[in-house]
Amino acid sequence: MRRFTLEVYTEGHCDVRNLQPEVVKHLREVKGDGLLHLFVVGSTAAITTLEFEPGLVKHDVATLMQKLVPEDAVYQHEQTWNDDNGHSHLRAALIGPGVTIPFSNGKLCTGEYQQIVLIDFDTRARKRVVVGTLMV
Amino acid sequence: MRRFTLEVYTEGHCDVRNLQPEVVKHLREVKGDGLLHLFVVGSTAAITTLEFEPGLVKHDVATLMQKLVPEDAVYQHEQTWNDDNGHSHLRAALIGPGVTIPFSNGKLCTGEYQQIVLIDFDTRARKRVVVGTLMV
Amino acid sequence: MRRFTLEVYTEGHCDVRNLQPEVVKHLREVKGDGLLHLFVVGSTAAITTLEFEPGLVKHDVATLMQKLVPEDAVYQHEQTWNDDNGHSHLRAALIGPGVTIPFSNGKLCTGEYQQIVLIDFDTRARKRVVVGTLMV
Repeated sequence: MRRFTLEVYTEGHCDVRNLQPEVVKHLREVKGDGLLHLFVVGSTAAITTLEFEPGLVKHDVATLMQKLVPEDAVYQHEQTWNDDNGHSHLRAALIGPGVTIPFSNGKLCTGEYQQIVLIDFDTRARKRVVVGTLMV
Repeated sequence: MRRFTLEVYTEGHCDVRNLQPEVVKHLREVKGDGLLHLFVVGSTAAITTLEFEPGLVKHDVATLMQKLVPEDAVYQHEQTWNDDNGHSHLRAALIGPGVTIPFSNGKLCTGEYQQIVLIDFDTRARKRVVVGTLMV
Repeated sequence: MRRFTLEVYTEGHCDVRNLQPEVVKHLREVKGDGLLHLFVVGSTAAITTLEFEPGLVKHDVATLMQKLVPEDAVYQHEQTWNDDNGHSHLRAALIGPGVTIPFSNGKLCTGEYQQIVLIDFDTRARKRVVVGTLMV
């Protein structure tokens, strides 16, 4: 088992970041079959896979999340804590904080158009810590 | 690899339970880096991470799920089986049955406000079995 | 760690396929406790657990996904690429590309009515590759 961490600077507000370019650097010299696990620390961001192209990344994900879990609905979380990110917590819980991806001889088994992405749902710019684990 | 199980008594109906206090007991003496996997047995409950505070846990999660997958919509599952929990199955499939969390020297890498939670979507009180696995 | 792959032929359009019968063949002779990870290659399909009965599988999942992420809404992804599957990408990212399930002495720890399913959200028939990994 090998551990590494990534630091990712986001703008919040559904900012989608492609983790794949940094992640693959940690796999290059790993022989054989294995699993990569990525986990974002914190309860207002999520990790999943997505085709990383501007239409989805800059527009469609944010539009969908605003429809499903609107930023401007009434959340008890915000009433209690005088906070503004109830929707951020719910969106993150819905998508989930991590993903596991198989790899083989240093190469992820993802599809041609499938990237590992971090989505930051918080309402401000954040520095995110992503914990990576390789199991071989 | 170490295996343990938790028994969790829920009220159903979107009852959110904090698994973290019980889970950390199994990690205390584990040295080095590792991964914890938690899985809830059954198709009407889910596991994710969430800030465990009353606004989200007692109110916002239930309100969101009732909006996205209403308890009182028409589900073919219920017509077929003369059942009342079509929404429970769909909610559970949407969030997913488990989560993987990295740890290091006996401590989970979760954020300060990030807890591992079980959400029971069934329409009655249940005793849930959660299967925990430690990989080191 | 053992690796296997499954090929799954789907009809697309929210076609739900039960992976469990094929998956359990790879577990039969594995002793002790372990974890099974399944991952679908590609960004328009997902894996989760679900009771595999016709009401949910043929009707309710598709109805829910059409409500949450409609096939006929306007997606920037489609405008950019002259494509028709913006909803497929978003649905897949929401549910996620894989699942991890504990097993013990050759038997999955899933519930009586809980099956591992692949849902294909693309807009055409597809041959899907599922990468399976056993950790013991």
